[in-house]
Amino acid sequence: MLTIPQLRELFEAYLDENALTQAPQSLYDPVNYIMQLGGKRMRPVLSLLAYQLFDEDVKQALPAALSVETFHNFSLVHDDIMDAADLRRGKTTVHKKYDTNTAILSGDVMLIYAYSYLQNTPNKEVVNEMTKVLSEVAIKVCEGQQYDVDFETDNTITLVDYTQMIEMKTAVLLAASLELGALAAGASEENRKHLAEFGRLTGIAFQIQDDYLDTYGDAEKFGKKIGGDIAQNKKTCLYIKALELASADVKNELIELYNTAAKDEQAKIDRVTAIFTALGIPDDIKALRNAYQAQAYEHLDKVVADKAAKQLLSELADSLLIREL
Amino acid sequence: MLTIPQLRELFEAYLDENALTQAPQSLYDPVNYIMQLGGKRMRPVLSLLAYQLFDEDVKQALPAALSVETFHNFSLVHDDIMDAADLRRGKTTVHKKYDTNTAILSGDVMLIYAYSYLQNTPNKEVVNEMTKVLSEVAIKVCEGQQYDVDFETDNTITLVDYTQMIEMKTAVLLAASLELGALAAGASEENRKHLAEFGRLTGIAFQIQDDYLDTYGDAEKFGKKIGGDIAQNKKTCLYIKALELASADVKNELIELYNTAAKDEQAKIDRVTAIFTALGIPDDIKALRNAYQAQAYEHLDKVVADKAAKQLLSELADSLLIREL
Repeated sequence: MLTIPQLRELFEAYLDENALTQAPQSLYDPVNYIMQLGGKRMRPVLSLLAYQLFDEDVKQALPAALSVETFHNFSLVHDDIMDAADLRRGKTTVHKKYDTNTAILSGDVMLIYAYSYLQNTPNKEVVNEMTKVLSEVAIKVCEGQQYDVDFETDNTITLVDYTQMIEMKTAVLLAASLELGALAAGASEENRKHLAEFGRLTGIAFQIQDDYLDTYGDAEKFGKKIGGDIAQNKKTCLYIKALELASADVKNELIELYNTAAKDEQAKIDRVTAIFTALGIPDDIKALRNAYQAQAYEHLDKVVADKAAKQLLSELADSLLIREL
Repeated sequence: MLTIPQLRELFEAYLDENALTQAPQSLYDPVNYIMQLGGKRMRPVLSLLAYQLFDEDVKQALPAALSVETFHNFSLVHDDIMDAADLRRGKTTVHKKYDTNTAILSGDVMLIYAYSYLQNTPNKEVVNEMTKVLSEVAIKVCEGQQYDVDFETDNTITLVDYTQMIEMKTAVLLAASLELGALAAGASEENRKHLAEFGRLTGIAFQIQDDYLDTYGDAEKFGKKIGGDIAQNKKTCLYIKALELASADVKNELIELYNTAAKDEQAKIDRVTAIFTALGIPDDIKALRNAYQAQAYEHLDKVVADKAAKQLLSELADSLLIREL
């Protein structure tokens, strides 16, 4: 059984072997650039961990791992254009380093390669099912991204809408990463579905936690400036829950705060945080995250697989979801 | 056996049935908009015609037909962003009617649906092979589009480079349209490959003819202004062949003409046309088109299939490739 760092290393080597060195360079250089920007390789590692639950020969899941990582990076390239983002993982985004047209076309070809790589799975019997899983999740990711855009100008969204959006935009890809790894290993449908649910619920819990920590986290442990979401008027689950609970006056104050440029940023962060706290938002959001986390582990418990391999998957989830908020 | 207008009608009805009416509308309205802009439905009709060569129950090829039409429209949406085009088939382009971000994301989801639709093919045994064909052609289309962009700033491209570019950018999708239809009918690999070659070579011949007619065509029959490519400094196969054949002086004059804004557009068209004619370009290009056309029909001859159905396919090709240039 391989450890998480060993799986990551295995994936990195496979990624290097599969670098797109063919012509036209102007199309493929940006692909190699974004694929080599690094990151935690969360999704491919999930595919490999899922495979390892059912079979030792984890190399068989490398095509699936490369597919999900390529799909993920396709979505980053196109999202960064839409968000006009200059930086990704501390480096220049593709459309800034090259240009927007290049980022569109290189993103397109990555989406196609995400499909194409699945064909390299040794177990040919499951390839078409893998393709179906990829299409289903890919459609949801696009829809989630569109909801995210739509929500920016909509003050009527509920916590349910928001949860559905983060589920589609990010959680379903974690689910698919696990499901594709399990499929490559020929896992039963029941095991696959429990794993996918584990991934989906963990993903939602992680996003909720991320929103929470941005306002209530320990700056040092969190690694980002506290209050950044508030400063940027980001409609997090804290904000949406607050709008649901607030009196008309407080609701108007919140909407006002999120719609005007702050003269004193820290004063704005402090005021919004005080409103959240007075409404009891921290406990509500902690409870929400904990509920998703607990449900996620219930599904993992139901997966019938190698115990030590399950322990690794559990450890990865623990590294995402801190025990005590 | 259904006629070409009947096949087109069958496809239009299927397209209507499969309109994407689900949420989010902001994602799917642009998709339905571009899919309903019409056009000749060349690619889906090719899929249906190819199916009909081998089997009567042509409905079985409708998922393949919808896949190729959706893929084609995805590429139009993204290409129109890259070309900053305002009009498509006389109507506002998606990125102009909505916005660029919408056009990127709606295009992405169309590419995914092109894959997803293939899953609706009744003959499940061939679905994965169809997916492979789609990925191969999709990669080529992206590469072709990139070459097209690269060639704009490259004065060293040869006629071979140019032919390869138009092959990738457009001809391979005609080939794939035929191949997917044949696959849905369970045609033999030999028949499929001959059909694909027929489509590819016809596509190249058509593009070469299109370049020729833009300068030497009959304005009334061609339906466009003669000399439009020259006025827009478009590096057609006529221009590239002329650079290959011209003396240093004439070559410099041509490059100069294509790199400066013309004071008198008609004078520029007349001068460039005179250079082409003096170099014998019309005969060379006619011969080139004829060679591709002849090769295309050789492959069609080798397809073992229903004779009347082959005749229909031949008629469609004849409508694309005029007999006498």
